[in-house]
Amino acid sequence: MTESTLTTATPKVTITSDFWNKYRQLIVKEVLPYQWAVMNDEADINITDEKGGDNPDSKNSHAVANLKIAAGQMKGHHFGFPFQDTDVYKWLEAAAYSFSYQANPDLKTVTDNLIDLIADAQEDDGYLSTFFQIDAPERKFKRLQQSHELYTMGHYIEAGVAYHHATGNEKALTIAIKMANCIDANFGPQAGKLHAADGHPEIELALSKLFEVTHEQRYLDLAHYFLVNRGVDPDFYDRQLKADGFDNDIIPGMHGVTHSYYQVDQPLLTQKDAKGHAVRVVYLCTGMAHVARLTGDKDLQAACDRLWDSIVHRRMYVTGGIGSTNVGEAFTYDYDLPNETMYAETCASVGLTFFAKQMLQNEAKGEFGDIIEKELFNGALSGISLDGKHFFYVNPLTADPKFQQNPSKAHIMSRRQDWFGCACCPSNIARLVSSIDQYVYTVTNDAILSHQFIANQAEFDQGLEIDQTSNFPWDNHIHYAVKNPNGVQTKLGIRIPSWSRANFTLVVDGVEQTRPVQNGFIYLDVTGDLTVELTLDFSIRELQANPAVASDAGKVAIQRGPMIYCAEQADNSADLWNYRVAADADLTYHFDADLLNGVGEITAKAAVRKTPATTDLYADYQPTTWQPTDLTLVPYYAWANRADGQMRVWLNKENA
Amino acid sequence: MTESTLTTATPKVTITSDFWNKYRQLIVKEVLPYQWAVMNDEADINITDEKGGDNPDSKNSHAVANLKIAAGQMKGHHFGFPFQDTDVYKWLEAAAYSFSYQANPDLKTVTDNLIDLIADAQEDDGYLSTFFQIDAPERKFKRLQQSHELYTMGHYIEAGVAYHHATGNEKALTIAIKMANCIDANFGPQAGKLHAADGHPEIELALSKLFEVTHEQRYLDLAHYFLVNRGVDPDFYDRQLKADGFDNDIIPGMHGVTHSYYQVDQPLLTQKDAKGHAVRVVYLCTGMAHVARLTGDKDLQAACDRLWDSIVHRRMYVTGGIGSTNVGEAFTYDYDLPNETMYAETCASVGLTFFAKQMLQNEAKGEFGDIIEKELFNGALSGISLDGKHFFYVNPLTADPKFQQNPSKAHIMSRRQDWFGCACCPSNIARLVSSIDQYVYTVTNDAILSHQFIANQAEFDQGLEIDQTSNFPWDNHIHYAVKNPNGVQTKLGIRIPSWSRANFTLVVDGVEQTRPVQNGFIYLDVTGDLTVELTLDFSIRELQANPAVASDAGKVAIQRGPMIYCAEQADNSADLWNYRVAADADLTYHFDADLLNGVGEITAKAAVRKTPATTDLYADYQPTTWQPTDLTLVPYYAWANRADGQMRVWLNKENA
Repeated sequence: MTESTLTTATPKVTITSDFWNKYRQLIVKEVLPYQWAVMNDEADINITDEKGGDNPDSKNSHAVANLKIAAGQMKGHHFGFPFQDTDVYKWLEAAAYSFSYQANPDLKTVTDNLIDLIADAQEDDGYLSTFFQIDAPERKFKRLQQSHELYTMGHYIEAGVAYHHATGNEKALTIAIKMANCIDANFGPQAGKLHAADGHPEIELALSKLFEVTHEQRYLDLAHYFLVNRGVDPDFYDRQLKADGFDNDIIPGMHGVTHSYYQVDQPLLTQKDAKGHAVRVVYLCTGMAHVARLTGDKDLQAACDRLWDSIVHRRMYVTGGIGSTNVGEAFTYDYDLPNETMYAETCASVGLTFFAKQMLQNEAKGEFGDIIEKELFNGALSGISLDGKHFFYVNPLTADPKFQQNPSKAHIMSRRQDWFGCACCPSNIARLVSSIDQYVYTVTNDAILSHQFIANQAEFDQGLEIDQTSNFPWDNHIHYAVKNPNGVQTKLGIRIPSWSRANFTLVVDGVEQTRPVQNGFIYLDVTGDLTVELTLDFSIRELQANPAVASDAGKVAIQRGPMIYCAEQADNSADLWNYRVAADADLTYHFDADLLNGVGEITAKAAVRKTPATTDLYADYQPTTWQPTDLTLVPYYAWANRADGQMRVWLNKENA
Repeated sequence: MTESTLTTATPKVTITSDFWNKYRQLIVKEVLPYQWAVMNDEADINITDEKGGDNPDSKNSHAVANLKIAAGQMKGHHFGFPFQDTDVYKWLEAAAYSFSYQANPDLKTVTDNLIDLIADAQEDDGYLSTFFQIDAPERKFKRLQQSHELYTMGHYIEAGVAYHHATGNEKALTIAIKMANCIDANFGPQAGKLHAADGHPEIELALSKLFEVTHEQRYLDLAHYFLVNRGVDPDFYDRQLKADGFDNDIIPGMHGVTHSYYQVDQPLLTQKDAKGHAVRVVYLCTGMAHVARLTGDKDLQAACDRLWDSIVHRRMYVTGGIGSTNVGEAFTYDYDLPNETMYAETCASVGLTFFAKQMLQNEAKGEFGDIIEKELFNGALSGISLDGKHFFYVNPLTADPKFQQNPSKAHIMSRRQDWFGCACCPSNIARLVSSIDQYVYTVTNDAILSHQFIANQAEFDQGLEIDQTSNFPWDNHIHYAVKNPNGVQTKLGIRIPSWSRANFTLVVDGVEQTRPVQNGFIYLDVTGDLTVELTLDFSIRELQANPAVASDAGKVAIQRGPMIYCAEQADNSADLWNYRVAADADLTYHFDADLLNGVGEITAKAAVRKTPATTDLYADYQPTTWQPTDLTLVPYYAWANRADGQMRVWLNKENA
């Protein structure tokens, strides 16, 4: 047997986790067919606007119809947002990922036909954005602040790369290459080209993915250009708006948004705070981290590090949600994390997962895995219902059905919706769940980083295999069986989650061992076969926010393992603000297989305010009478799947 | 000496209160000259839009210029809101009231000339709304949902009646009468007239005032018609909008507001909840209560009672502020009183004071006086700075300079502003303060109701005089000397405020007595001279909100006498959410003549969270270490007159 080292080739990962396979089967059986029906206007649904109101314009998505019109297969006008095409592309990408775990010939017939349709809709020069093709061909690339043209094509490129990878369909990749060539012909530093990027980042990460398949240097150069040039000439967009007609908006009112909304208020490389539209920030950072790795540009990496720090250490909800205001779906200021006027868009949590994955590939730091875990089990996953047919745009930390009667809070819904006028979130959570096998390992030159506790069987190159088994997230025992028939020399890095860093046990080949935690990981040498038993700390924890967070003062959030918990009125009948967790909360856990498709429930010792018999709006303070009671908590991701009612993550705490 | 009873003629009241005379002199010396300069575009100021942002359109008010253009004295276009004229009229009304306590020949020259200008601007048929006269004569009365034409003329009518009363200027009244005749010619139940009222109530209360001067029955009939007809045909406005061009807004976007925003969603007489724009509601209710009294219409009175109950018992902040959301400056739902996204417009507090005054005239119920007091000493008065030149539109219960960085909260300013694009509030608070002598007594057929503890000398008819002395609101001893040389037979009703109802002492002609509190008042027979010493309960109180108020759970507000207190960062350096009032607050009071023009300061035993040395955004909960400290509180009306910083009314309370 000769010694050899591992390459960084992507492993083949088969998810065996019961928790995740339920969701992944849901994607195949319910989510993909449902979304396809919606996008073909064949579902009997209500379409809600992204702020919670009814969409007055249509019961239809029209997303597939727009492609058919552009392809000459139908007559009519474009309907929906200028980026309506991306609903289809993200769905296609989700479908592509699903083939890796579920062969599905019927679906593949649909998706192959969809590729043909997209190819037919694409123009000869590679351009594809149905809004402009159908209704505004003279305005192509003339209103980049809001046109979403590169955003739209970027989403196709992601889908095309994924579909080509999954099925070998060459046409899918050719479309993407033609698009990239079209963009390269029109954008870049050269004279005669447009010296700007799209108002909505996405093309940067898409070109990076395409570069990795094609090794075409122009694509990487262009992505790099878009990043280093961003914010260098913010007036570019204003000049375009003026030339195109300042008020002649494609998205009504959007000419008035600030430069910081779309991250062009200052050069990207000098930006220190996450500002503006949260989804744009994390898409931008995902591309930036990817390009930083591919190019070795340390300035880009430093910019990523700064924005990561801003988001994760000062501007993120405990669920992983980001975006502290619905106005512009945006970041606000450090430690401003209001629970009642927040946004925390599903897409933003999905995007932060993307960013974390890229950062982890660049640096073996456990925190990146911590955030992937936080999103997968909390803030992103809460975007989809247990039946796979209802979706949150906003993932609140406090909800009340009555919020609908206060327009400052009406964007916070207490029920997931069928679909949205701006339907970015449903397909985004679908493509994340169906690609979760790509979020389990990160392979570096000298280590396999096992950063997620999602049971799986993984095949690395040179015959190295890992079988990770567990009943995570409900159980804290993780078992690894490493088979290494060819004696590959490497290391197995296992992330010790931040919530378990102080307390875990490790048994290697039957012998209890200690290992230092290095930047969030422990490392084991791999030379032959190996078994590892890792036991994590599943103590139920009470969390507090930094004292600079006004909204959470005096409150705790409850966590067990990766799961943030919440109180729902389905389990706790009084108004939730009238409970407080006891000083000694005596937290207990039990798994209920019949509840919410099987969840672990937590009970806290608590008390509830005894309501005085008064209708006075204000009265002299009387020392509160606290009636001891239990407070029942369920995992946050599973809320709003039962009777409509209040929900709270942050709970009043006795003497806190 | 013959026995006689009092008539309900308005007494002549001279304010002797030191607290109020400071403000009333401020009105004469600073506020009126300042506002006149602003409205003539002669002040070097910043104009803020009503939501807090800079007004991009102009540094000018243009309010007087609009009148000059309409009068043919200047050339140009109208600038500002269609109701810009009302700034001038409310200022004129404030000036008129000031003449009752401060002869001011220079000012009277200005105001007489202003009356001439207004007369010149008025059309022959009585119409006066400079926006329509200058820039849209063909659209008069064609877009009542947003035109504010009757609102505008109503404000003149109020001013004209006041000016005529103060100065005897007949032209001032004639203008008002011509306006009323114009409106009567165009509106009413008769065929050929418009069967609707203005989208913004005001004309109803104005016509009632004009009726009381002129005894012209048509004016009262028309006011009554506007009220009972309101909401009977809500589609009227939609039909007008359609005919005038749906999108052809005078106030951009306003065609889209809901019917409930302007209280036409259902017949006014059946409305149970205060809904929509808060200022509109209280202006409407003020007119309705007035007309109910003048006509004896019990259905109108019942509607007033219902809306009073909705506002005061379920939808009012503890400061008297109303309007729970900035979106539409509106009411929301019962017990929804968020402290961070609230509105509590100065004009709404002024309007609720008007409503309460009318209700008190209809029924001798102490609660109406309680609310007048609450507004005068808190929610309304906070709208003006101690220097008389800065104003709040929004009167928050929680403020932080950082709110400017979160658009969901940016309407909450921590500094009063020079002026506003929509400048309704500055002149509204001015006219309230300069007319405060009208808010001290209510005279009924059988009693003089002394409902405010504002030191004064009052002359009633038949020679009856009352000299009320006190150092209220800082001191709780109220002295009445009644002189009754003609032996008028009546009663003196003295309001016992809700905060003192359980505890007060009464000495009549040197003898301690008890009296039952009847509907909020005690009554003393008046037959000859009389002295009364009333001692109210000035214990410092901790208030709690009803347990249905989510935002105030676990919190207390501090009150002494009529004054609601607040914590400011000028006195308390830590973040205010990190304080809590001790279980035994041991509240102490001292008057500081040098602080904020002289205020009573309160000190509470409290504790402050000792901040752990961590930059973690979230960490395991550690039992809070509370460092004992004092919390210093100042009266709410006086906040934001020192260094910029945080402010809170509702304070965390130990174990609450």
